[in-house]
Amino acid sequence: MLFRDAPELTADVLVCPLRPVERFRDLRPDEVADLFQATQRVGMVVEKHFQGTSLTFSIQDGPEAGQTVKHVHVHVLPRKAGDFHRNDSVYDELQKHDKEEEDSPTLWRSEEEMASEAAALRVYFQ
Amino acid sequence: MLFRDAPELTADVLVCPLRPVERFRDLRPDEVADLFQATQRVGMVVEKHFQGTSLTFSIQDGPEAGQTVKHVHVHVLPRKAGDFHRNDSVYDELQKHDKEEEDSPTLWRSEEEMASEAAALRVYFQ
Repeated sequence: MLFRDAPELTADVLVCPLRPVERFRDLRPDEVADLFQATQRVGMVVEKHFQGTSLTFSIQDGPEAGQTVKHVHVHVLPRKAGDFHRNDSVYDELQKHDKEEEDSPTLWRSEEEMASEAAALRVYFQ
Repeated sequence: MLFRDAPELTADVLVCPLRPVERFRDLRPDEVADLFQATQRVGMVVEKHFQGTSLTFSIQDGPEAGQTVKHVHVHVLPRKAGDFHRNDSVYDELQKHDKEEEDSPTLWRSEEEMASEAAALRVYFQ
């Protein structure tokens, strides 16, 4: 589980398989099961911790879907009423941020901030 | 597997578990595994059949994430270069369409058209 540096979102948690493969199709059936059983658990924690009432799950599977990191991963975003003016602007923000991330590492959240958030969420899994 | 009536997209295939539950968290672990192992297979077929080069997978899990049908489902969309001016406008289109679908059933694709598409895809699974 990773914590992405998306300051304009309340949270964007990534879940990825241990074995680095680029595309979703490259995962073995047992890895698919593991990935989404973990994603389900992460979703429950993320929704609770960030006081969301819904969740957006998304895989950008390949460059034409917006994938920028060549290790398949699931985005898990807590959602609540009014979080974006148009509900699915959440994806525009993700996409914009993917680009910013490449171009402007100075916009990243600090390692300390992310570590602190990781520690706060870790307790739910213990 | 269902075929949605999204005329502005090349395709939007939905994969849903047999047991109707509203939220992703309501699925048992074996159902999560089944759902995404099926989704992986559907993704490979959808990408091939629609000559995509990437895929977008998405769950709108709860009303604040844009869910309008209370039966958890995964959207599988074939993607290719230039399919949307801004890459993630695909989600705006989905969202807009969800609303149109409720308000204007006259905009739906015909049953015949969807049945024909279903038949064309079914051969990949035989």
